Amino acid sequence: MIEKLNVVPFVSVDHMMKLVLAIGVERFLVELADEIETDFRRWESFDKTPRVASHSKEGVIELMPTSDGEVYGFKYVNGHPKNTREGRQTVTAFGVLADVGTGYPVLLTEMTILTALRTAATSALAAKHLAPRGARTMAMIGNGAQAEFQALAFKALLGVDRLRLYDIDRTASVKCVRNLAGMGLDMTICGSIEEAMEGVQIVTTVTADKQNATILTDNMVGTGLHINAVGGDCPGKTELHPDILRRSDIFVEYPPQTRIEGEIQQLPPDHPVTELWQVIAGRAPGRSDARQITLFDSVGFAIEDFSALRYVKRQIERTGLYEELDLLADPDDPRDLFGMLLRAQAAAPTAA
Amino acid sequence: MIEKLNVVPFVSVDHMMKLVLAIGVERFLVELADEIETDFRRWESFDKTPRVASHSKEGVIELMPTSDGEVYGFKYVNGHPKNTREGRQTVTAFGVLADVGTGYPVLLTEMTILTALRTAATSALAAKHLAPRGARTMAMIGNGAQAEFQALAFKALLGVDRLRLYDIDRTASVKCVRNLAGMGLDMTICGSIEEAMEGVQIVTTVTADKQNATILTDNMVGTGLHINAVGGDCPGKTELHPDILRRSDIFVEYPPQTRIEGEIQQLPPDHPVTELWQVIAGRAPGRSDARQITLFDSVGFAIEDFSALRYVKRQIERTGLYEELDLLADPDDPRDLFGMLLRAQAAAPTAA
Repeated sequence: MIEKLNVVPFVSVDHMMKLVLAIGVERFLVELADEIETDFRRWESFDKTPRVASHSKEGVIELMPTSDGEVYGFKYVNGHPKNTREGRQTVTAFGVLADVGTGYPVLLTEMTILTALRTAATSALAAKHLAPRGARTMAMIGNGAQAEFQALAFKALLGVDRLRLYDIDRTASVKCVRNLAGMGLDMTICGSIEEAMEGVQIVTTVTADKQNATILTDNMVGTGLHINAVGGDCPGKTELHPDILRRSDIFVEYPPQTRIEGEIQQLPPDHPVTELWQVIAGRAPGRSDARQITLFDSVGFAIEDFSALRYVKRQIERTGLYEELDLLADPDDPRDLFGMLLRAQAAAPTAA
Repeated sequence: MIEKLNVVPFVSVDHMMKLVLAIGVERFLVELADEIETDFRRWESFDKTPRVASHSKEGVIELMPTSDGEVYGFKYVNGHPKNTREGRQTVTAFGVLADVGTGYPVLLTEMTILTALRTAATSALAAKHLAPRGARTMAMIGNGAQAEFQALAFKALLGVDRLRLYDIDRTASVKCVRNLAGMGLDMTICGSIEEAMEGVQIVTTVTADKQNATILTDNMVGTGLHINAVGGDCPGKTELHPDILRRSDIFVEYPPQTRIEGEIQQLPPDHPVTELWQVIAGRAPGRSDARQITLFDSVGFAIEDFSALRYVKRQIERTGLYEELDLLADPDDPRDLFGMLLRAQAAAPTAA
């Protein structure tokens, strides 16, 4: 790219869709998981801070910043469960990468689609280390906007090719089956959570209510299961009965954040958990026993967004799938911001 | 505006310049100061948090969020003093307003120019309450990117029409005089800070070094002066000798932030200060004595950006000076994010 100091590359929703389709969803998920894995291995080189949340009665707006000392990234993301009733997304997001050396943004991108992809890639990455070997069957409880991305990530990274779907709204499951048709998945729509759980090695819970719900109760969870708990991701929003948590080995992204937002908000603050990055870096065991119940208490962390932003930046440089945004004031003399305004006036006298 | 759920209005640098010129710089500053004053009067209705800063050797990147329960706003802003040596701005910024009810962004705008305007408007607003009555002469120490905005804000809000300029780089002062020529200001370029301080009622310090500097020493500050200290705005970056602070009545935006970032980082953490909003709301006295030295220890606070964002939003709705950004994924069925991707593929089969 030619350096124009005022310009920030911008990836619109349309460009993001074109990029994902050009690369292919499954390959995108695999490459994104690789990128996240690479960053989790160098976890200690990142500035980490719990997200900065602004809660309201109907939802939450969050900023999720991180930096590795060379590149800075942040995501703006909301969570408003009631939005779907008004035709809006529960979660929308956009993100920014910036150069730490100059503070100048170098990428602005939609992240609604990208967040669904990175969440799914992170889930599958965790499962690669935690799920029973050779797992091929997964229950998916909650078949909304995230479901297909989760399904394809588990297929692409683990070879999971049998899905047992359940949603309180059956039309969501039907949508999921329709969207995933012809992609090599054997899918069954189930009439109850119990039915969905029959014979699975993995369960993904990805429901959206902003309240403490009990999607899974203790009796549904057999030995050896891997639980990918995605939906419980803010204070007061959980999906699992606490008895399940007490029987599981729990893996989390960033404990200070997960203790507030994850399933483990239901447990005492000193309940032992393992940080996923330590498993990935070979410093802590993942699954060590076929009878063990493993739980990835996913809430989403800034480093995953950082990885996704950096991946997208590289891909748009390769494909040209972006536009240029006139976001940064760039006077010829940087101390002459006011002069730039005067020259704009001289250039277009009628504007005044 | 017609509601298109995927679209966020975007104000580019070019549109911001057109907007400022269409309104007129002085009128813009006056209206913006009114907006800030209105929000300072209802200070208690805002969520307040110190900015979220990511410091590096060469600068800082910050996120500054706030919300009044109905509207949420944040600003991304960097501060990199060495940038000017590479032809870049020390400070660049952009900002976002969002609807708290849905979490959807409703405005994305450049804020490099807008930050200069809101900083100047806040300085002049503070001076309206703190400077000696009838003040007409101001020293301006530091004549960089912010200088002209400060000058015009003090002219427009207080009637200050005599400037005594000093910068370690005389070409900066010359630039300032050139830019402000014909705008009703009597300007004198001075050879030293001492000379600039002769006979002034107000001094504005707005230098940019990221280090503890001593722009003003105690002997330069006579009784009755109002000091508008703008440049000292992050840890380790101050402009005033601490003896000046001890002789002054100090007014700040948000104490938890100013104690870390402002001139008062040089004082014990319990040194008494007055919150500017309390003066504006009539709950605390401003200047009460002609001999008093008043100091506005300005660091910039999120509520000022919030006011500026809301002002700009109203002005672009009136003038149409914005473009539409395809920032938010908006599938027909909000739970069908993946289906939107599939339909994009069907619409452009060659893209896959």
